[in-house]
Amino acid sequence: MATLKDVAEKSGVTVTTVSRVLNNRGYISEKTKAKVYAAMKELNYQPNEVARAMTRKYTNIIGIIVPSLLHPFFNTALNFFEKYASQYGFKIMVCNSNRCREKELEYIDMLKSNRVAGIVLCTRSSDMDLYFDTSFPVISFERMVSDTIPGVICDNYQGGVLAVQCLANSGRKRLLILSGSVEYHLPADDRIQGFVDTCKKSGVEGIVCPSSERQFENRDYSVWIENALTDNPGVDGIFATSDVIAAQVIQVCTAKGIRIPGDISLVGFDDVELATLTTPRLTTIHQPIEEMCRYSIQSIVQKLNGETVPVKMILPVSLVKRESTENT
Amino acid sequence: MATLKDVAEKSGVTVTTVSRVLNNRGYISEKTKAKVYAAMKELNYQPNEVARAMTRKYTNIIGIIVPSLLHPFFNTALNFFEKYASQYGFKIMVCNSNRCREKELEYIDMLKSNRVAGIVLCTRSSDMDLYFDTSFPVISFERMVSDTIPGVICDNYQGGVLAVQCLANSGRKRLLILSGSVEYHLPADDRIQGFVDTCKKSGVEGIVCPSSERQFENRDYSVWIENALTDNPGVDGIFATSDVIAAQVIQVCTAKGIRIPGDISLVGFDDVELATLTTPRLTTIHQPIEEMCRYSIQSIVQKLNGETVPVKMILPVSLVKRESTENT
Repeated sequence: MATLKDVAEKSGVTVTTVSRVLNNRGYISEKTKAKVYAAMKELNYQPNEVARAMTRKYTNIIGIIVPSLLHPFFNTALNFFEKYASQYGFKIMVCNSNRCREKELEYIDMLKSNRVAGIVLCTRSSDMDLYFDTSFPVISFERMVSDTIPGVICDNYQGGVLAVQCLANSGRKRLLILSGSVEYHLPADDRIQGFVDTCKKSGVEGIVCPSSERQFENRDYSVWIENALTDNPGVDGIFATSDVIAAQVIQVCTAKGIRIPGDISLVGFDDVELATLTTPRLTTIHQPIEEMCRYSIQSIVQKLNGETVPVKMILPVSLVKRESTENT
Repeated sequence: MATLKDVAEKSGVTVTTVSRVLNNRGYISEKTKAKVYAAMKELNYQPNEVARAMTRKYTNIIGIIVPSLLHPFFNTALNFFEKYASQYGFKIMVCNSNRCREKELEYIDMLKSNRVAGIVLCTRSSDMDLYFDTSFPVISFERMVSDTIPGVICDNYQGGVLAVQCLANSGRKRLLILSGSVEYHLPADDRIQGFVDTCKKSGVEGIVCPSSERQFENRDYSVWIENALTDNPGVDGIFATSDVIAAQVIQVCTAKGIRIPGDISLVGFDDVELATLTTPRLTTIHQPIEEMCRYSIQSIVQKLNGETVPVKMILPVSLVKRESTENT
């Protein structure tokens, strides 16, 4: 296998110069760079990233800690994390905490031992600032895990507003929100507040029905949906705070002979691919997952460059109309 | 931060002994091990994995190269790769080749530069043996990429057999297979052969309709499904070779007023979570994704230990009955 020295000899420069080209450090003329790259190509030189990481402070890896690898929201996010990390020359290392704080902390330790360039926390634990000094590039994704760790979230409150407006504008009078678990005080709880406030403003009835953490785990919401419908007769509009919940609302309603959108108009949340694969297709609140992922990776790069990163970034949501609500 | 030397002093052994405990190398008594671990815990010692990788031949990372991070089959696989890698003390690094051979080769180079412990190839390029010497732990997943690289696949042929048997047993006479692209000669093509052979044996008509690679990319099969139905009137049973295709068959049929399973009985393939989220829920061929992932990780560990790994492993599929076929 060719060494750094072979490349230096072939290109007629010093080993230090080759190393500076590889690490993009200091001024090197374009002509010299071209010579070094040509030699590397000719010799099929493969830099030892492990050895390089010894001389740098960090590797070219960004760690991503997610609470689930089966929930479509995190699958979709992973796709975009990989896309933007790749654009910045980074690779991603994926860790699944399965919503276990202990496993999260273990992964944080492991990622730091592996000298990752930064960490994206998609988890839900609080007090995470204890585990990071302020110089470490870390960002929380769709969560706020401490006062000192920057985060990116979507405008969840506005999501609730848009969903109610969509339902109320088509004449629906008795609305039900089927929300995720509220046990962890996630930013997503604001969807409920947006729903409640806008129901009041629009003069329609608003009923809140939160699920439990157990249901997030196995993603089976059917019994809970059925009970919510039985307990609240006459509901004519539903806001489900994830597309996974909304897909199961369609199943439960179809089994009961309730037509969507004829009898009940339905709005989901997330706008993951599932929203286009249900029958009928879901009207849903589009969460800017791609932009949130791009911002997360960018903020890690900025932090590595010593730049300041905002403490909190809120990105806008929008309503995507498909078939589960009526055209108005 | 505590160093190896601090741990050695605290536990009253030499630095070499601590290092041997950390790397699990040579004979160390359980008593000594316990002392070293206690000291590490007390001092909150964090091994520098990068430095450790310098002395070992490889890191604790397994690279996974997938052709898509949005297709549910690969999302599901990723979940299980992470699960079993984690059980063996490995982390996963995820690379998305987007079905581009050049990007695949770049990722292989990158992963080797990062001294990964092994690589799982979920890609579809052939002649990949050029890029691996026979000692490197690599396995191809649901593909056979060369004669020398071991692979794990499911019994795709049997999947076609089971699907036709399910449809024919409920009296369906004119069957259509809506299959993935056949441009790459993947093991999945055997699903078609199983379908064709079993239609013949069962005395029912079998029509083959493959999709194109472009459709795999954007996962929008609706126009193709509509054309297939128009071109083949009187079809009363459909075998869709992925649950994503099957979900869209439901959409197209519902829009045309065709009842499932009343008018057309439908069998999918994969048994990913989507199969439980459609209305009606999908009867589908269960692909043993979890077992395939476990086997992949195990075979990398075996190879690292110098053990021999079978060239090809075929795991069984099964039929999961839900609502898109009639009860018989």
